[in-house]
Order: sequence, then C-alpha cells, then structure tokens
Amino acid sequence: MKIQHVVVLGAGFGGLSAVQQLARHRDVRVTLIDRNNYHLFQPLLYQVAIAGLEAPQIAWPVRAMLRRYPNTRFLMGDVQSIDLIDRRVWVDGKAVSYDHLIVAAGTTSHDYGIPGVRENAIPLKSLADAIRIRDRIFSAVEEAVRTADEERRRALLTFVVVGGGPTGVELIGALAELNQHVLARDYPEIAPDEVQLVLLEAAERPLNYLSPEASEYTRQALQKMGVRVMTSSAVSEVTPFGVYLQDGRFMPTYTVVWTAGVKGVPLPGLPSGRSGRIPTTEFLSLPEAPEVYIVGDLNGLEENGSVFPQVAPLAKQQGAWAARNILRCLRGERELPFRYRDKGNLVTIGRNRAIGEVKGLRFSGTLAWLVWLAVHIYYLTGLRNRLMVLSNWIYSYFTYDFAVRVIHQRHQFAYPESVTESQPAEAAVSR
Amino acid sequence: MKIQHVVVLGAGFGGLSAVQQLARHRDVRVTLIDRNNYHLFQPLLYQVAIAGLEAPQIAWPVRAMLRRYPNTRFLMGDVQSIDLIDRRVWVDGKAVSYDHLIVAAGTTSHDYGIPGVRENAIPLKSLADAIRIRDRIFSAVEEAVRTADEERRRALLTFVVVGGGPTGVELIGALAELNQHVLARDYPEIAPDEVQLVLLEAAERPLNYLSPEASEYTRQALQKMGVRVMTSSAVSEVTPFGVYLQDGRFMPTYTVVWTAGVKGVPLPGLPSGRSGRIPTTEFLSLPEAPEVYIVGDLNGLEENGSVFPQVAPLAKQQGAWAARNILRCLRGERELPFRYRDKGNLVTIGRNRAIGEVKGLRFSGTLAWLVWLAVHIYYLTGLRNRLMVLSNWIYSYFTYDFAVRVIHQRHQFAYPESVTESQPAEAAVSR
Repeated sequence: MKIQHVVVLGAGFGGLSAVQQLARHRDVRVTLIDRNNYHLFQPLLYQVAIAGLEAPQIAWPVRAMLRRYPNTRFLMGDVQSIDLIDRRVWVDGKAVSYDHLIVAAGTTSHDYGIPGVRENAIPLKSLADAIRIRDRIFSAVEEAVRTADEERRRALLTFVVVGGGPTGVELIGALAELNQHVLARDYPEIAPDEVQLVLLEAAERPLNYLSPEASEYTRQALQKMGVRVMTSSAVSEVTPFGVYLQDGRFMPTYTVVWTAGVKGVPLPGLPSGRSGRIPTTEFLSLPEAPEVYIVGDLNGLEENGSVFPQVAPLAKQQGAWAARNILRCLRGERELPFRYRDKGNLVTIGRNRAIGEVKGLRFSGTLAWLVWLAVHIYYLTGLRNRLMVLSNWIYSYFTYDFAVRVIHQRHQFAYPESVTESQPAEAAVSR
Repeated sequence: MKIQHVVVLGAGFGGLSAVQQLARHRDVRVTLIDRNNYHLFQPLLYQVAIAGLEAPQIAWPVRAMLRRYPNTRFLMGDVQSIDLIDRRVWVDGKAVSYDHLIVAAGTTSHDYGIPGVRENAIPLKSLADAIRIRDRIFSAVEEAVRTADEERRRALLTFVVVGGGPTGVELIGALAELNQHVLARDYPEIAPDEVQLVLLEAAERPLNYLSPEASEYTRQALQKMGVRVMTSSAVSEVTPFGVYLQDGRFMPTYTVVWTAGVKGVPLPGLPSGRSGRIPTTEFLSLPEAPEVYIVGDLNGLEENGSVFPQVAPLAKQQGAWAARNILRCLRGERELPFRYRDKGNLVTIGRNRAIGEVKGLRFSGTLAWLVWLAVHIYYLTGLRNRLMVLSNWIYSYFTYDFAVRVIHQRHQFAYPESVTESQPAEAAVSR
C-alpha cells in the first residue's frame, strides 16, 4: 500500500497527541503545520502575564519534539484555506496535499460583537498577548507614579479582568498576589489599597461550570485577596479609558483583559457551527469528508445534547482518537465512536488556595493547590521547562517575588481630553 | 545643609554604580531615570540572540535593586534634553530639577553613514534587538525549508555579522555552535554545511585591540568552527537582500547583524565630541558645568592621548568615581582626578574556547573559558538570574542544546524581483 500522508493542523494539545499516535507507524507520513514554531502550554499563560514565568518556559519548540519521529516533518505557516474536494491545504500560498487531515486549530478570543473589545481589551490566548498584558500592567503602574492627576492615577491603578472562567479567576488571583507582594515592595509611592482589582462576570457566579459551593469558595478566596468580584455584570462597551456595564455604570481603567469567551479559528473551506465549533460524526470526522477529522476546541460533537468542554484533556483525547481511527481505516478496521473520559476540574486562585472537582468529589485549599502544581509540572512539555518552571515557583514561594517584571515595550496612556502641557509638571516628579 | 538632589541618567553599569555609592548618604536624595524598567547585562545579550538565554535572565528590575535604598527613587522615561543653565532634565515633557547630574546614558549603534545599515541590518544593543535577531535567524531557517528556489535558500541560510570586536566574535561563535548542535538536529532538511556564517571586519584582524597572537587564536578557533572570517573587508551598503563590500563584491543574505560601532546617545543640551563622546575634566565633570558628570561609554576624557575603552568595568569605575566626587564636594573636600584600573580583557568564542589578556598576560582555551563563565556569573545582577543563567549553561553544556528557540514574531522575506504564484508550489512542500 502507498504510504498515506496525514496532515495535522495545529501544534496544540490535540495536534501533538495525534502526531504522537501516528509517529510510530511506517505506513503513514505526517506533516504538522502551525503558525508558531512552538507548542504553547496555555494553562500557564496567565503566569507569563503577571511576570511569574518567562515566555519560553511554557513554549517548547515543535522541532525538538519531532526529532524522535523520522516519519514526521514540521512546516511553519499560516493555513489560509482547506480544499475538501482536491484534498489539499493552502499554506502561505502553497498547496499541501493530504490523504487524511486532522484539524486541531483551536480557538481565538470571542468579543460577542461588543463594541471596543477588539481595540481596547487584551485577550489571553497567545504568548504575545501575555507579554502585552505584562507590559501594560507595569507601564500603567510606572505612569501612575509619574502623574499628578488623581483621577488618572486611579484609572491607571485599576485592572479589570472580564470573564469568571478558570483563566479569568487564575489571572485575577495572580494579580492580587503581584499587588500584595511585589508592587507593595517595589513602589513605595503607591499604597497597596490604591490598586483596584476587578473581576467582571456576566453570569451569577464565577466558575459557573462547577458546583455552587466551588463558586462560593472562589468568590470568598478572591475577596479575601482584595479582588472585587462583580457577578451578573455584563460589559456593554470597552473604551481606551474604561469599561461600560450594561446597567450603565462606567469603570475608569486603562487595562482590560478579556477572557470572557472563545470561538473556533475560522478556516475557509470547512463547514461552520455555533461559536465556530464544527459538528462531526461520533468518529470525529466530517460527514461529507470522512477523511477529515476535527479535534479539540474546534469540535462541535454533542453528547447528551451538549458539546464537550474546551479543555486540554479533551483535546488530547480527541487528537489521539482521531489518529487511531485513521490507523484503523488503513488496516481495514471499523472506526470507533469517541468516548470522553472526564478527568475533573482544577483551578488555582493563589498561594495555598485552589479548588478541584473530580467525579463529584470536591476539594479545596492547600491540598488542591498542591495537586494543581503537580499536575501542571507533570503535563508541561520538556524536562528543561519543567525544571525551569519548578525552580521559578519555588523561588517565588519563598521570596514572595515574581521576577520577570521586564517591560519589553512601554505602553502609552492617552488622556481622555486633550491635555495641555501647562499642568503643574514639577509637582509629579519632585517632592 | 539642604539635602542635595542628584539625578542619574541611565541604569546601566555606570549609573547603577553611582547610585550604589550615593545610596548610603543622608545628605543626598537620588533620582535614577531610565527608559527601561530594568538594568540590562549587556555582555550576555548575544546569548539571548542565539536562543541560549531567555531575555529576562539578563535583565533585572531597577526597582528591585533600589528597594534597599530609602533615599533613592526611580523614574521610567525618555530623557529629551538637559538644561544646564536652569539645572533641570526634561523627561517625557516634564522637568526634573537637579543639584548634581550624572549622565550615564551609554551608546547606541553607529552606522558611519553607510547606506542601508539602519534599515536592513540589526544592531545588538537592546533586548528588543536580541529578540529580533533570534526571530530573524529562526524565521530564515524555517523559510529556507519551505522554499523551492536554490538561490533564495542559500541566501536565507547565510548569516553575516559585521564587526570583529568582542560582540561580533562572541555572536558568530555562538551562531556556529547553534548551527552545529541545534539546527543540525532540528532540521533534517538542511545539511550543516549549507549554513554559511560570515564575520566581516574592516580592520586587518579580529579583536584588534588585543595582541596579534590573540587575534590569530580567535581567527583559527572561528575557522575551525566553520566561520568564514573576512578581514580587511569593509561594508559599503546593506540591502534587504545582502551586503556589498567596498571591493564591489556582493554577498546575498537576509540576516545582517551590525556590531561594527557605537556612538554616544545624543542628548540635546550637552556638548558633543568625537563619536558622541563628551570631553570632560579629569574629575569627569563638564568644564562649563562642574556639577554635571559624564561617565562610562559617553565620557570622552583622554589619557595619554587616547580615550578609555567603552567597557563595563570602566563605566562602573567612573560611575562610582563621579558619585564620590559629588560627596567630596558636599563635604567641602577637593575632587580627585579619575584613575582607571584596567582589569584586562576576556572574550569567549565557544565551548572551551576563549581568550584573555590581563596586564600583558595572555591565556586561552578551557582555562580562559572557565574564567569567562565565572566572571560573568559573578557580575550578573540578582541571585535569581545567576542561578537561572548558570542552570541554562549547565543544561546547554551537557545537552548541546539551546532551548529558547521560540519565534515571537515571524519575519517575512521579500523576493528580489516580483515573483509570480506560478512557480512550482508543490515542489517545496511535498516530497
């Protein structure tokens, strides 16, 4: 039999786990395509945003992972469209033909059409986003020190996270620790209670996919850490100077992080579905093109009337499942319908504070926090990154320090109205 | 006596060493101003460029260093001009008054007016430069894999470093190791001898401030590592597609790093000198404004008819010296003329290969390399960064791996002439 060419789009959890399944087989060759040359460990992205980890520590070069697999090659490029009829993918103007295709392109931030979100809020999906958030936070604090205008200072020191899902909760919790332990020591010019941290959630409770008890624990833990948790608070607009809520209130701020939702990465040529999730057969393939599989966040298969959660364990399971179904096809065996093994949920809020729910069992506090640490180190790719992240965490735990507070690119903060140079300039910088 | 306000411009080696001298004294308060919020350990910048170290590991937040000094504060901003008459510095549109001023603003890349250098070559002076070089190198290699055009592939795989000073030598040596150990394993599509590494130097020998024997050692070591060392080769133009030499030859390449020269950062309001180095009295102050001191790379004081070398030890010594002269003034004592203590030179070329010259004594090879490692770890700022850099080096030494090969921003490579989409697209990406 001719060697079959399997093309995998996306080097995230889903794509990599597919590649790993296929790599040992002589009757396939694999091309993995991604716009980045690294696999990003998204669950720790928020720690890059708050200066706890360095960007490359949660990114691992794809080629380093593929070294072991002689039947697999990597192609860095942007996928422009997919041609289901001629079975090829267009990448940066060049065609790549496939016999089987696994689409694991993941999601991008979703603004639900709310005005100003795309222009004025920062998502937390990529390394560039995380570095941008970090630059924004530290630029805002530096600017707050320099300004003589009390109102402007208050807005510069207000940080708003929209979205009470795991990313939003973990980010605002880490921000609270940054404020308590790092900003308090580095900026004698700023009192810790001057910094306002706000979590906005449209639903009635944070982490609303968990039990009400878990949400309550989270709310109280965040409040103890100084976070204002505003639930039932939907955003109606984001401007360069703040956030409008649907009830008409305005919250002045220069830093809005948007974690409120995601949608599938649009790929011309593929069918679309709700929030960009593409409906598939129970084998994870397209009904109209059974050689094309959709896995992970993009997959819109329903089980008991609801879609699967968009989490790393699901993506991994689906990636491997699709790969195994391809191999079964090649051997002339019947494909198997996908079965999800729910491994439970785990969210960290801060030092010694986390919440876990596994198969109806709930645990919180230090135990949950330690489990969270262990799980994340375990699943992180590459021995070097594990050691680096672990040593960073140990360092931070004992010193209460987040060390990576380097501003790569200083952000500028406009004035709401045109401000003259005639304000008392000396006041701000001399004492 | 009224507390005196000392303003220090620049958080490099010179500025920080001045601040450290002044920090213990009650009769001065100090304002340190820098456009970045970190102190950059420039001697290791080339290791960020070749993916050996992560950017924050050689950058240390200024505020973390100033925590201990209650009389010192930090202001992040761009210095626009200096007003010697009214004794104030303009920073981002705001005035900061001083009683004494220490200018330690350092240097920027110098293109000597050679066409195309500013647009098409990358200097190696800032973190952003280093990350840009890293992105360029890895983007070029990825693009080389994708292209079907042999000539374009050769240009993409040619890396030119202009300038045979310590920065150029250390960078091209590290690039040779990157090629030998990392690219060879990650890119089965590329033969190691396809990658061309070129060091261009206008003078007759590399490291021409050292002895001819040291230059010869360096030349041979680099050649053994596969570097083409071209001396007496001055650049006449850099284009997006390559480098023209003064003898008319053209070298096709998409990556040119410019380490051929520096000039003082221009500061309106200060007198100027050759290459932007400002002549001072032997007390390091301006003849026309004795309360203003110029230290480090910017200082143009001559000793026996020649200016001092632009190196970290000199900057440190001058920063401390200027600070001590200010304190002497305050106590009514006579200022002391600057004396330079030459600590010698040390340049690393690669694994177990380095060259040192201290007070006429020359040593090379493994010993010099170990001394180089020890000195750099010792002088690096912050315990955390020392441990991080050391563990990175140990990791790289045993694995022959440079781990930080993350492309933050993919570079695009234009075609010399407009290229049609009709070229054999499939050829490059299918096999």
